[in-house]
Amino acid sequence: MSETEVHHAWLPPVAWQPIGSRRTLVVGTGPLVDTVRNEVAQACARYGGEVRTGQPGGGAPDLVLRTDPDPAADGDGYELVRAAGTTTVRSATPAGLLYGLFHVVRLGAAAFGADFPARTESPAARRRMLDHWDNVAVHPVMGQVERGYAGGSLFWRDGALREDLSRVHAYARLLAACGINAVTVNNVNVHAAEARLLTDRLADVAAIATVLRPYGIRVHLSVSFAAPMLVGGLPTADPVDEGVRRWWREAAGRVYAAIADFGGFVVKADSEGQPGPFGYGRSHADGANLLAAALEPFGGVVHWRAFVYNHHQDWRDRATDRARAAYDHFVPLDGRFHANVVLQVKYGPIDFQPREPLSPVIAAMPATSVAVELQVTQEYTGQQRHVCYLAPQWSELLRFPLAGRSVAELAGGGLVAVSNVGDDPFWTGHPLAQANLYAFGRLAWDPGADPGELLDEWISLTFGPDDPALRRTLHLMMDGSWRTYERYTAPLGVGFMVHPGDHYGPAVDGYEYSRWGTYHFADRDGVGVDRTRASGTGFTGQYPAPWSDVYESVWSCPDELLLFFHHVPYGHLLRSGSTVIQHIYDTHFAGAEQAAELVAWWRAVPVGGLVTAELHARVTERLGEQVRCAREWRDQINAYFWRKSGVPDAHGRPVDGS
Amino acid sequence: MSETEVHHAWLPPVAWQPIGSRRTLVVGTGPLVDTVRNEVAQACARYGGEVRTGQPGGGAPDLVLRTDPDPAADGDGYELVRAAGTTTVRSATPAGLLYGLFHVVRLGAAAFGADFPARTESPAARRRMLDHWDNVAVHPVMGQVERGYAGGSLFWRDGALREDLSRVHAYARLLAACGINAVTVNNVNVHAAEARLLTDRLADVAAIATVLRPYGIRVHLSVSFAAPMLVGGLPTADPVDEGVRRWWREAAGRVYAAIADFGGFVVKADSEGQPGPFGYGRSHADGANLLAAALEPFGGVVHWRAFVYNHHQDWRDRATDRARAAYDHFVPLDGRFHANVVLQVKYGPIDFQPREPLSPVIAAMPATSVAVELQVTQEYTGQQRHVCYLAPQWSELLRFPLAGRSVAELAGGGLVAVSNVGDDPFWTGHPLAQANLYAFGRLAWDPGADPGELLDEWISLTFGPDDPALRRTLHLMMDGSWRTYERYTAPLGVGFMVHPGDHYGPAVDGYEYSRWGTYHFADRDGVGVDRTRASGTGFTGQYPAPWSDVYESVWSCPDELLLFFHHVPYGHLLRSGSTVIQHIYDTHFAGAEQAAELVAWWRAVPVGGLVTAELHARVTERLGEQVRCAREWRDQINAYFWRKSGVPDAHGRPVDGS
Repeated sequence: MSETEVHHAWLPPVAWQPIGSRRTLVVGTGPLVDTVRNEVAQACARYGGEVRTGQPGGGAPDLVLRTDPDPAADGDGYELVRAAGTTTVRSATPAGLLYGLFHVVRLGAAAFGADFPARTESPAARRRMLDHWDNVAVHPVMGQVERGYAGGSLFWRDGALREDLSRVHAYARLLAACGINAVTVNNVNVHAAEARLLTDRLADVAAIATVLRPYGIRVHLSVSFAAPMLVGGLPTADPVDEGVRRWWREAAGRVYAAIADFGGFVVKADSEGQPGPFGYGRSHADGANLLAAALEPFGGVVHWRAFVYNHHQDWRDRATDRARAAYDHFVPLDGRFHANVVLQVKYGPIDFQPREPLSPVIAAMPATSVAVELQVTQEYTGQQRHVCYLAPQWSELLRFPLAGRSVAELAGGGLVAVSNVGDDPFWTGHPLAQANLYAFGRLAWDPGADPGELLDEWISLTFGPDDPALRRTLHLMMDGSWRTYERYTAPLGVGFMVHPGDHYGPAVDGYEYSRWGTYHFADRDGVGVDRTRASGTGFTGQYPAPWSDVYESVWSCPDELLLFFHHVPYGHLLRSGSTVIQHIYDTHFAGAEQAAELVAWWRAVPVGGLVTAELHARVTERLGEQVRCAREWRDQINAYFWRKSGVPDAHGRPVDGS
Repeated sequence: MSETEVHHAWLPPVAWQPIGSRRTLVVGTGPLVDTVRNEVAQACARYGGEVRTGQPGGGAPDLVLRTDPDPAADGDGYELVRAAGTTTVRSATPAGLLYGLFHVVRLGAAAFGADFPARTESPAARRRMLDHWDNVAVHPVMGQVERGYAGGSLFWRDGALREDLSRVHAYARLLAACGINAVTVNNVNVHAAEARLLTDRLADVAAIATVLRPYGIRVHLSVSFAAPMLVGGLPTADPVDEGVRRWWREAAGRVYAAIADFGGFVVKADSEGQPGPFGYGRSHADGANLLAAALEPFGGVVHWRAFVYNHHQDWRDRATDRARAAYDHFVPLDGRFHANVVLQVKYGPIDFQPREPLSPVIAAMPATSVAVELQVTQEYTGQQRHVCYLAPQWSELLRFPLAGRSVAELAGGGLVAVSNVGDDPFWTGHPLAQANLYAFGRLAWDPGADPGELLDEWISLTFGPDDPALRRTLHLMMDGSWRTYERYTAPLGVGFMVHPGDHYGPAVDGYEYSRWGTYHFADRDGVGVDRTRASGTGFTGQYPAPWSDVYESVWSCPDELLLFFHHVPYGHLLRSGSTVIQHIYDTHFAGAEQAAELVAWWRAVPVGGLVTAELHARVTERLGEQVRCAREWRDQINAYFWRKSGVPDAHGRPVDGS
């Protein structure tokens, strides 16, 4: 791969060989069917196969891709079967055909082996969405991409739309191949330049939509709640003001005139300095419904984020609990949102930590469409310098029976995640971080998928199916990497302890006396946040049974969340049988050790095939940084708690950093 | 004062009334005598007096200002006497006449009252210097002025020399009036744009010199040790390379061709990322002498900073001690520096903390010309948002008998300080911070001056001599303000505990696990840095007797430096009779309380006269921030040590931030 070339990610040419070397019949019409036909034709051009377009001809086709319009079905599903030497994908919609094609790609040679019975695939959620926190103009602090660890933006550069959108085309293919069908093209923090995307810079958004559309992806736009003032010149943004309502209706009309399949708006309101309805004494339902009414005639949706909390908290104030905020703000509004409002709730009550309990909001608003927001970009999980395969965490969250039903079932509004890609040649900085993007798309389609199998799927696609040793090595390196990361960072669910501002690397007290509501309250006797009803902030009471009681009691609370819910002495005995302090030492030695082992595993991987010298070198460089940083975590956490507790390690290891 | 007007600082028009309303005879020739004559003429134009220029005329003069050329005297001194109704200033040089004139301004009406006998004034140091940490181009992190708390630079703006240098003219007057005669016009951290001041942007420096020259001030330039490569295109900056030596000679020649009275170079080498002789395996003597040789033919000097330490220290490494670094690097080189090298040593071994012991380097290099560097800009002392009159600290340092002689006597190379001014209408952000600049100049001239008297001198000049109530209030607010600041910040000389990066406000562990060598080592049992020979880093051994022993023993070490030199238990009894932990609580309650009292004092000051509404409002706003910040310091420090020690306050006050 040359410096200017872009890595193929999970669509290397060789993945197309099984299709490209065979005869395929594509039946159907419309732009997405054209995309299917073009993809097959390109594969055939490379591997000598043949693509037909409806007319019968020499010999039976190996693969039939056929739309079978069904007025009752408008989803993205398809049926896949192999019988009598022919593999057939049948879908009600052209989009379904596209997803079926990529399923055949994933199967590879197996798609053309023994017959298999018909199986029907359809996505759990209609909308499978990525949010880009990309700024149009470079932000003086946050840069071109907020929390971006993969270079610049695919869309924007120094205040302008990129002239060359070929990377966006390649990106759209990758997204369709893992099932994603919605993309927000700008940061939820909407600054001056970004606010204008809704009005005089709408052509930029339309240009991106044109590139994404052939892969079944709709564009969404993050908008400022103050847009009527910022770009509309109105004196107010009050949601009950008729001029404001008209302005939003007209703005939406202009958007749909330019982009007929526009997806909708994403809004971060009254959150970390962004404007919102509170400024006018209105509720978040008033705010969200204002935008929903404007989009309704066109079929658009509003993703309204529930990430609302007091970000000027006084650390001395023990009564205020950031974990409670989303529930306290939004649950009383259940039933008051328009049908085309999706309440976008971060999976945990704080902020994308490696370990948090689920947000109780997800189970508490039965009359509201709720989407769960994950973070593919590794803000708090190693920033694409550490190997941290997140699908095991996401799978655990999505399967969790929060109120008799799994989180995936409760999330009727689908899954949304913050993207981790940029203009880096490997897309994601760390080449292995591509797996997170892939797995997110696949889990958004099928939340019940096994994260280990998704990992193998990604490895086989990305590095080819023919190297079992490489496949085993990568599986070993990645499958447990989230738990490894958890081991060497903040212990037992207490969270944060990261360097303020950039959120990378350890700073145990970095947020302890700050305004952000993220504390651990460690003193010489113990550590953790008392969120019980009995003696703490009462946050446990926001959970449905049995979790409200499970989390309330120090004896039933799971170890991994103990310090999220309880303040306990260092000598407290965990359910694992270890004390809290010994658990801290043990996990931190183990985690740093496991990080170090990654280097040896990777060193044994030879350069060759799809493991190019550039990719090998990039992974090696990142692993070096991970090992350094994991040791730093180990030593700072251990030294901090040793200094506080005075308890030596039971195994006599040095815990003072010496 | 309007928004665009500039505050008069310590030269309000009314300060000139006693001279301006009288008859003055100015005798002498040369540009500085012209300046004297112009100053008197301006005063007379305003107040109806008369200035004569040598020719006798109607009536005896009230004031005679006369140069009396003396080939043996080339200093800035003068003789002042009042006899038979005439006050006379006599000086050997025109510069002396200028300083004598400002002495008469300071005396005010008293200069023309009762006769007084002749007294001779001459400065302790030939060079009384301000370093501006001003960047030419705005630095992405440090801004236009590094550690600047008073707006932009007087000299530079967005990469260019300011077109209007009238502020520089006003600044030169103020500096001359307090005795300063040398100014470095750019930051010691020399970036790309600043490196070119030495070569193709020399005209900018010459333009500043032209404005400063009429007030007896020479310009100096901070240069990059790598200048031969950065701007000279050479392949090396090795000090023994003949091409490098020639390049510096030619560069110096060009500078003096443009600025005949150029002062010299200031160099930060091998320090915090700046290039230096270590890169070539050469010593700092080799490096300094390289530049000294280039300047020697022209009478220029090199200020070579001794601020050299490992800024990538591992916090786990207890053997390395930043406090030792300057001594370890430089003392072995004593006697090896050219005569025109001045080793510029920060007053303390760490970095401009509110409390540090003196740098032992000052006493350890008898064969080297040493200048002591102070910091007028309040990087670690409230950043011109807090009232912190620093002259009491400086006076204490300068009088300190470090090796049988006072620091002022040991500092044969004079005093240097980092300036605190910017383009703020009040010059210094906080109007009361002007006093620090004034007092620095006066102490550089006379290190034995009483800081309380200097404060009154500044108050009388700045606010007029006729309001005893105001004078008393300001004296009360300012005279003890440094000790107040010390009370509510890091305790007992341990230092730092500031917010990383900006150095403002508390972060007790902010630097504890960092690479900067500034630690406090607090654990559940005690706090402080063991720098003894017996069990610590051995730093105490760098001091001459008796201090090496005084600091070595926990029983003789002064309380205010205890934690700088010793790690002691929280229950350790101070010489004051208090325990360390109770001292921490007591001083932090007291310090925050004293900060709060400032508000009441200032509220009682009426607007009127030289206390303009704008000035009053600015001080009020700053005091509000000081009170808030002092409380934050109190609560964070107290809560931190309460959590660590578990020792309650003896007086039952809340120390957990509640």
